[in-house]
Amino acid sequence: MKFEHSLEHEDSQMMIVQANIDDMNPEFSPHISDLLFAAGVNDVYWIPIIMKRGRLGIQLNVLTGAELLPEVERIIFEETTTLGLRYWPATVHRLGREFVQVQTTWGAVRVKAGFYQGKLVQFAPEFNECESIARAHGVPLKKVYDEVRNLFIQEHEDSGQIGSQAHKSKQSP
Amino acid sequence: MKFEHSLEHEDSQMMIVQANIDDMNPEFSPHISDLLFAAGVNDVYWIPIIMKRGRLGIQLNVLTGAELLPEVERIIFEETTTLGLRYWPATVHRLGREFVQVQTTWGAVRVKAGFYQGKLVQFAPEFNECESIARAHGVPLKKVYDEVRNLFIQEHEDSGQIGSQAHKSKQSP
Amino acid sequence: MKFEHSLEHEDSQMMIVQANIDDMNPEFSPHISDLLFAAGVNDVYWIPIIMKRGRLGIQLNVLTGAELLPEVERIIFEETTTLGLRYWPATVHRLGREFVQVQTTWGAVRVKAGFYQGKLVQFAPEFNECESIARAHGVPLKKVYDEVRNLFIQEHEDSGQIGSQAHKSKQSP
Amino acid sequence: MKFEHSLEHEDSQMMIVQANIDDMNPEFSPHISDLLFAAGVNDVYWIPIIMKRGRLGIQLNVLTGAELLPEVERIIFEETTTLGLRYWPATVHRLGREFVQVQTTWGAVRVKAGFYQGKLVQFAPEFNECESIARAHGVPLKKVYDEVRNLFIQEHEDSGQIGSQAHKSKQSP
Amino acid sequence: MKFEHSLEHEDSQMMIVQANIDDMNPEFSPHISDLLFAAGVNDVYWIPIIMKRGRLGIQLNVLTGAELLPEVERIIFEETTTLGLRYWPATVHRLGREFVQVQTTWGAVRVKAGFYQGKLVQFAPEFNECESIARAHGVPLKKVYDEVRNLFIQEHEDSGQIGSQAHKSKQSP
Amino acid sequence: MKFEHSLEHEDSQMMIVQANIDDMNPEFSPHISDLLFAAGVNDVYWIPIIMKRGRLGIQLNVLTGAELLPEVERIIFEETTTLGLRYWPATVHRLGREFVQVQTTWGAVRVKAGFYQGKLVQFAPEFNECESIARAHGVPLKKVYDEVRNLFIQEHEDSGQIGSQAHKSKQSP
Repeated sequence: MKFEHSLEHEDSQMMIVQANIDDMNPEFSPHISDLLFAAGVNDVYWIPIIMKRGRLGIQLNVLTGAELLPEVERIIFEETTTLGLRYWPATVHRLGREFVQVQTTWGAVRVKAGFYQGKLVQFAPEFNECESIARAHGVPLKKVYDEVRNLFIQEHEDSGQIGSQAHKSKQSP
Repeated sequence: MKFEHSLEHEDSQMMIVQANIDDMNPEFSPHISDLLFAAGVNDVYWIPIIMKRGRLGIQLNVLTGAELLPEVERIIFEETTTLGLRYWPATVHRLGREFVQVQTTWGAVRVKAGFYQGKLVQFAPEFNECESIARAHGVPLKKVYDEVRNLFIQEHEDSGQIGSQAHKSKQSP
Repeated sequence: MKFEHSLEHEDSQMMIVQANIDDMNPEFSPHISDLLFAAGVNDVYWIPIIMKRGRLGIQLNVLTGAELLPEVERIIFEETTTLGLRYWPATVHRLGREFVQVQTTWGAVRVKAGFYQGKLVQFAPEFNECESIARAHGVPLKKVYDEVRNLFIQEHEDSGQIGSQAHKSKQSP
Repeated sequence: MKFEHSLEHEDSQMMIVQANIDDMNPEFSPHISDLLFAAGVNDVYWIPIIMKRGRLGIQLNVLTGAELLPEVERIIFEETTTLGLRYWPATVHRLGREFVQVQTTWGAVRVKAGFYQGKLVQFAPEFNECESIARAHGVPLKKVYDEVRNLFIQEHEDSGQIGSQAHKSKQSP
Repeated sequence: MKFEHSLEHEDSQMMIVQANIDDMNPEFSPHISDLLFAAGVNDVYWIPIIMKRGRLGIQLNVLTGAELLPEVERIIFEETTTLGLRYWPATVHRLGREFVQVQTTWGAVRVKAGFYQGKLVQFAPEFNECESIARAHGVPLKKVYDEVRNLFIQEHEDSGQIGSQAHKSKQSP
Repeated sequence: MKFEHSLEHEDSQMMIVQANIDDMNPEFSPHISDLLFAAGVNDVYWIPIIMKRGRLGIQLNVLTGAELLPEVERIIFEETTTLGLRYWPATVHRLGREFVQVQTTWGAVRVKAGFYQGKLVQFAPEFNECESIARAHGVPLKKVYDEVRNLFIQEHEDSGQIGSQAHKSKQSP
């Protein structure tokens, strides 16, 4: 059963925004990630780096559509301790995506399938749903993942039930 | 008391210069950072990376004005062991900065205040001065920082004594 | 089909050997790992660390039976640049292990199954065999893994074909 | 206002438990940390390491009272993909702790104060409470921290209101 | 004795391709690096990063000529678990290179010499040849490197035997 | 010319002291390292780790003689933000060391030679002296190292001028 799908595409209006931070309480990072994701950015990630005087700093990275740049800058400057940030344009290439459901012993679980030039190349169980099952049923999370992947392979991978014509040609905006 | 100030601005003539190094004695890194900073670059940082054959390499990163690129390349090629480097342009956005002094039990300490669209968003005690006090008086560095931050908040944060009109509009060159 | 098995056990005669290295060419690390594994140690791993003066150093770690300590020390002192190393005793707890085969489209592949108190808790396709198939047949490695895991789950996980009585009680030497 | 306190002490019945993992989906780590903390361990942390063949592995570390070792082993073996783990005894030295409240503009916030040989050496605002305030009032988290720290210093640090006699001598069990 | 040489040059038709991966088995990384190198890319490296929910993810980075971008994307999407990647153009500056041989006690070993504006600035023994000697003769690899470097310095560094006119002016395409 | 030497030995009265820190300003780390080294510890190093809630924490590690443990604890508790630390005993094995001088074009430089069971296994130019030369003469640091290593190999490595009888048998206290 399909929930939603989106087509493979490229987006050349993306920005990578970066700031090196060597004087911030690490407790703040997850909260700052939350604010940035809530603002609609595509990704937030942190990289350990060695800065001036051998300090273990952290580099904040944000991948965002260019239209969100002012808001991203506002959050970074108001919430982190950095006095500067930098950014440059990048092109993003995203696979076509479709959600399908598999029926496990413990109930339905969504799987996100990825399409490259119309071909299924990747599938990933939805983490939240797998974790809920693991907690509710006292089952190891890795076992839930195995079950979901197993069912997906049996039910969907070769049957062509997913991967409609819509995914077969790569669309560029 | 103000020492100096600079206005918030963007600079689109910056370069990020990068080199992956997997065959260099790590003792050389701090010296190479020193040479690059002495040449006038804005920032130098190192990132641990996994390179060919699983070697723990180090990625040298330099953020510099484009006009220093030839000198940065010279230093990297003459001092590191890399046979290649890469660079691309980036835009930097720096906050307006002002130095103010607070009077601590141990003497005056400078604090760097950062302004975003005219609003005070960040303040940081000057590390060197705090460390000197810690050493001279046998006080934990974290305690010196607390004292300086405390005084700054009481004396400056809400009083509007800093954050002159000069910072209120963002200036682009 | 079983190839070999070994019982779950604890071994309290193990040593963790460690050396911090801040002046070695990173190209040497994989070769040093090879020598240590060839000498019979249980594991060799490297951790990026920040050492004196902010150098990115690397910490060599070896997990070995105590009887190999002299040989491990010899290799570390003759091959790395360290002037000192340290070690302390540790107890290791290893799961019962059994190799079973699954028949894939591309041929047989061994899977290592792990037993905790007689219960199957883990299974892992043999990397070398999966990689050979990926190369020989031009199949993505992740797809070979999925196939192998899939078959293992169907053929072995619930059928009780593996996990003989031998694994049911934990044996201590 | 005091909520609770505990005395500075040493505990020589602690264990450090470690496992190197090079074949696990990183999505599982936070869930595994949750299970371990729920079981009552003192700390769970993960270290990026370079393993065989240059794989970026992750080292799971657990600091736990020795009495929880069987449960910790059960969780590690059932939930991670490791086939072995190791452990060794360690002594832990914990500071005396006391919770005090400060009254901020946004309400009460707890601060955890740490005592070493009866002397206040550390204080930390409670993260959850600070984050709730940041979200509820749209205030930068760093600003909430500054306010709480500021109030703590003014109200408690020098007044001797905390740090009762109970903390003045180090207690060993 | 010279084997081959190539001139110092800049190439502005390079791309940096990047993907953050938080749900892949780390065993796959070396194989993926192999496929990318076999496709003709200039460099592949992996960086440990902290992603959503505190997962230890890995960032795949590829430095490649722009003409290989479609093939690089195919490999990344078919072999890794990522659903998206990004790329941006970069200019690469490579030193002039020349291979010379030195005659060691154990046979000939190639050394790669690097030229910046016609000046010898770097030389590196060929790893494979040094490692073969180390294995064949039971000599520490670091000692083979010392010998090769020693001979290179004596025979080539000051004699001007390498560094022909060809390297003296930097060539830009 | 010999300056000093010390014999290869083992010391079983060493301690590894560790603390995980997730709420400290990274600017403090180098200062804390300085204090610990000044107190006489053998080594101080920091490891990036992932802590609760995905925070990038830093693990402080100190290798020290057991007699310094109280002072090390005092420094850690007074200077860092940690509320607890742990320690366990370890045996350290240090190589015999001797300083010899080589005469470079730029003056004398000390080299530290390491002896394992009486055999020379390692030599390292003294960093401070090499760096001074690099700065004073505008020579790349890597070139100074090459020169010093080159001279050491020619003058000392095979001549038996160093490695007196004193190093030939391993001494245990």
